[in-house]
Order: sequence, then structure tokens, then C-alpha cells
Amino acid sequence: MTPETSAPTPKRSTGRRVGPTETRGDILDAARDLFAAHGYEGASLRAIAARAGVDTGLIRHFFGNKQSLFAATVADRTVIPERMAAALLGPRETVGARVADAYFALWEDDETRSILMGLIRSALTSDQGVGMLLEVIGGRIQETAPFPPGKDGRMRGLALTSAHLVGVAVARHLLQVPMLVDMTREELVAAVGPSLQRYLTSPDL
Amino acid sequence: MTPETSAPTPKRSTGRRVGPTETRGDILDAARDLFAAHGYEGASLRAIAARAGVDTGLIRHFFGNKQSLFAATVADRTVIPERMAAALLGPRETVGARVADAYFALWEDDETRSILMGLIRSALTSDQGVGMLLEVIGGRIQETAPFPPGKDGRMRGLALTSAHLVGVAVARHLLQVPMLVDMTREELVAAVGPSLQRYLTSPDL
Repeated sequence: MTPETSAPTPKRSTGRRVGPTETRGDILDAARDLFAAHGYEGASLRAIAARAGVDTGLIRHFFGNKQSLFAATVADRTVIPERMAAALLGPRETVGARVADAYFALWEDDETRSILMGLIRSALTSDQGVGMLLEVIGGRIQETAPFPPGKDGRMRGLALTSAHLVGVAVARHLLQVPMLVDMTREELVAAVGPSLQRYLTSPDL
Repeated sequence: MTPETSAPTPKRSTGRRVGPTETRGDILDAARDLFAAHGYEGASLRAIAARAGVDTGLIRHFFGNKQSLFAATVADRTVIPERMAAALLGPRETVGARVADAYFALWEDDETRSILMGLIRSALTSDQGVGMLLEVIGGRIQETAPFPPGKDGRMRGLALTSAHLVGVAVARHLLQVPMLVDMTREELVAAVGPSLQRYLTSPDL
């Protein structure tokens, strides 16, 4: 319910914007909608600009290229970093299973699935983009996850965990390898969880 | 040393071929050389045909498309399937480490590295090709590896093993994720080996 006393949001023209923070937010909202609906390749900067009521130059000004915009969208406008960070919290003895379950659950949700597909495509189509993606998403996870920052072993464990999860997701959802398609999420978690458990908690990686 | 008594190999014209087996072999030799030198995308069917002294129609006749030719080349003209199958043989208690070491070693060898890159590109650029690739390479591994054919758990374990290894290789060699680039092969094998050990030997996957 919108309280009657709040000032009505002015209908925006495509010209001047209220402020940089708000404009940035509008672009991210538009980007999230279009990336989720059409995937990474299918959503053009032009279409995102049109939906946000700005021109593409302004998107470039704020975000650089499409890949940076995508990374910022994943970080700020999807549940992916929060869900993964939340899975890392909680009892240490079951962190591997929680992380596996959270990740595979995101693949079963239509909205995040297309974003995850986009993440993989975006990572594989440009070398440059990957470091940035890792920084944005890893940074967001580190903010909330209980890791001592800069701890090499932990970062190594996170990298191995990500590589394992993405490898399985690509094989299952993109390549549709029958042996992995046939597994339920519970079976997958039971299979992969113990490996992640070791990567995330072993002191000698 | 070529024995003087052996019949000299006739210089081939680009016209009639000696026989289908030999022609097939010539095409695979040419394909191996060009895929290794120029990668999957860089080696055109036309260039392979020219090197083999046949026309592209004949390649299509024998192999279908470029992806099938590539899979046949990997299977019949590279050490990859044999090395992986050999790693699966031997003491059961150390199979995980052996498989990890054999795979990462193939990535450190210039000749097989470009073929492995090609394998990944080929798999990711066409859905259809993947099943075929898996069949050819998995088939070759199964021929030599000590698996009871059709055992579901084992096939599941192999699929998880492949997904894990490829995920790590992509992150390390294509995306060059710093945390994984910084690991030595020994460290990688120590980290990943126990996971593969469970996938390849656990009875309850």
C-alpha cells in the first residue's frame, strides 16, 4: 500500500535524470529484467538503455561495457551473491552440502537460471571480463561470508569450489550430459558436497 | 630408418585414393596436424582437405561435420584417450590422484593443450556435438578401462570426474583465475585427487 502522503514519483522523460544514483539504479533494474528475459547475448545495451529511459552513452559512462554492466547487475540486482554467501554461513560441518544445494537450487529457478547461463557465457566470451566478474561476485560474497580476508587457502578453496560447481552445472544444464541430468538435486548434493566440504574447510589446500 | 626393401609409398595425386581406410587415415593425420597447430576454430575443413589431398565433400562423407571429425581425431590420433585410460588402470587406492595428474599433465603439453582447448570450444559451441564427443571418447576409455560396461554408478562417477576436471582446467587455463594459476600441478592433484577418488570408487554415487 502506498501511503497517500508520500510525494508522487514523477513520470520520467528520457532527458535529464534526477541524480546519478537513481539513474544507475534504473539502468540496473532494466538490465536485470532484460538479461533475465533474453539472456546475456539476447539483451542489447540499446534495449536496456531504452527500457531505462537513458541513452547507451550513459550506460557506458556508468558501467563501461556490457560485461561490466552484467556483473554489476548480478551483484546488485539478483539473489545469487546473497544466497551463496548465506550458504557459506552456518555450521562449518555442513558447509559443502549447503553451498552445493544453494547453487544447484539457483539453477532450478527460472529467473536465476538465465542469469547463471549468462554468467557462464559472459565469462567464456571474454577473458578480460572474468577477473572483473570474480572480483564483483567474490567481493560481495567475502563481505558477508565469515572469511578472514586475504587468507590464501580460503580463496583457493573458493576457487576450487566455484570451478567444480560451474563444471557440473555446465555439464548438466548446458551440455545436458545424461548421467548428470538424471541425478536429482539431492543426489548431486550428496555426491559433490563432500568435495566442497574439503575445499572450504581443509587447512592444507 | 626406412628399410630399402619396403615398397616406396606412391606420391598421391588429389584424385583417386588407394582405399577408404587409407583415405580416412590421411584425413585424420591432416586434421590432427591442423587442429594442433591452429586450434578448433582456426583449422578449416578446406585446409584439412587440402593437406590430406582430398576434397571437403569426402571429409563430409566420412565424418559428417567438423565436430565429428574433431572427435574422431581426438580419439584416433592423439594420446588423450590412452593416457586417461591408462590413469584409470592401476591400484584402486590412488586412481583419483592418477587421473587428476594425467589430465593436468595433458594441459601442460603444448601439443595436447591445443587439442584440449579445442575439445572445450567444440563442446560449448554445439549442443549436438557433445553427446557424440562423450560417446567417442568415453567409448575409447571404456574399452581400455576396467569398468563393467553399463554400470550406472561408475558412469556417474566418470561424468562427475570429467565435469570437475574440465571445470578446473577452464578456470585455470582459459579464464586464468589467479588462485588456480598459482597452484603447481602437485598442489592441484593433492587438492582435487581425493574428490575424484570418491567419484571413481564410491559404491553409493
